[in-house]
Amino acid sequence: MNSLKQRRTIRKYQQKDIPAELLNDLLKDAFRASTVGNMQVYSVIVTRDADRKARLAPAHFHQPMVTEAPVVLTFCIDLRRFSQWCEQRKAEPGYNNFEWFVNGAIDALLAAQTFCVAAEEKGLGICYLGTTTYNPQQIIDTLQLPQLVFPIATITVGWPEEMPPQVDRLPVEAIIHDEYYHDYTPADIDRLYAYKESLPENKQFIAENHKETLAQVFTDVRYTKKDSEAMSEALWKAMKGQGF
Amino acid sequence: MNSLKQRRTIRKYQQKDIPAELLNDLLKDAFRASTVGNMQVYSVIVTRDADRKARLAPAHFHQPMVTEAPVVLTFCIDLRRFSQWCEQRKAEPGYNNFEWFVNGAIDALLAAQTFCVAAEEKGLGICYLGTTTYNPQQIIDTLQLPQLVFPIATITVGWPEEMPPQVDRLPVEAIIHDEYYHDYTPADIDRLYAYKESLPENKQFIAENHKETLAQVFTDVRYTKKDSEAMSEALWKAMKGQGF
Repeated sequence: MNSLKQRRTIRKYQQKDIPAELLNDLLKDAFRASTVGNMQVYSVIVTRDADRKARLAPAHFHQPMVTEAPVVLTFCIDLRRFSQWCEQRKAEPGYNNFEWFVNGAIDALLAAQTFCVAAEEKGLGICYLGTTTYNPQQIIDTLQLPQLVFPIATITVGWPEEMPPQVDRLPVEAIIHDEYYHDYTPADIDRLYAYKESLPENKQFIAENHKETLAQVFTDVRYTKKDSEAMSEALWKAMKGQGF
Repeated sequence: MNSLKQRRTIRKYQQKDIPAELLNDLLKDAFRASTVGNMQVYSVIVTRDADRKARLAPAHFHQPMVTEAPVVLTFCIDLRRFSQWCEQRKAEPGYNNFEWFVNGAIDALLAAQTFCVAAEEKGLGICYLGTTTYNPQQIIDTLQLPQLVFPIATITVGWPEEMPPQVDRLPVEAIIHDEYYHDYTPADIDRLYAYKESLPENKQFIAENHKETLAQVFTDVRYTKKDSEAMSEALWKAMKGQGF
């Protein structure tokens, strides 16, 4: 599929709406994705309202896509609807635990990614906001997510106003293991990361951040151990707070 | 996309291999999916060997797809490769925590689902095995997954030998919430589950299991509270055991 091979994340959007019917059709396609036991333990919050987007923005560190995209989708783990159905049908649900948090995340993410592929095929551009797992509590509060509902992926969607170059990926042999996990030798790591390290934009990244290596930009600036540990605690706490 | 609208899970496959080049191309497409910070914190284990498939089978409760499909793919969270790169580049990685377990799961699942869409577009059939999160430790042992690597989704792939009817899905309005989470009233639940409950195959399911409601088939037979709690503990323990 050409739209898969040519894809890039789009962060700038035209000031042009997405028709409700088109969005609905794409979501309908997304909901055909595989789901555990055909239980569909996920929900999607569709944010179009400017005020609501402005209230979501801080949770996403004010990345401009949140307020500039015509549509923001928050894909959520949702064990609530299914549990409510059980309770109304003389059945005792047992889905308020870690296993179902993970199963719900899988369900939600397969639907989210199917949506993205379908949307890109129609010429729309998307951007995943990794911030969803950094500040889940703010999102829970803003979108009024009740117990057993948890945000796992946020996607901004719109008609592209830019066509950025495709970013690099590791060589496929970096990711694929035949039959069992083949651990990497130091020489493998050097070889597999050589192209990424050779790119002028990555060299510039190192210079701008006054670092010695590209890896240090990740560990010292973008995703530090200290931040990751604080986010782990907040994520865990939010998960528990939602009843899992 | 027609292949999205028409899709169904395929559990019976022709005795016909998938050419290595085709599989590689599809995985390459999959690796264009969005990934946190372009870090690609996932790996894919490709199992074709009959012995290895037989060894994976118990972890998947001996579902026949594991040994009958020409290819079994195990998508894994992988913070190991990235951490090794950091360590070889004078950078201290801080990715052995819950935040990165979840980020790795997101990365792995977006790639997995992109693979599935691309594969189905080529006429292949796929089946996700939910058992991956039930018995992770057996999979870890069989595929020799080292620290910071964790199996999150298993997909069997092959040329379809069956064309089962499409299964039902909830109405789209069951899943979509405008602007914020709209909690379900008892009447909403009745309405949204009415079609599912009306299906002859689901009525048969109730009768076969000697239950009163379809929900009870889930809570008492398929996914009990007791099993879910035991699986939660095992999943948690396996996650910790892999160093997260």
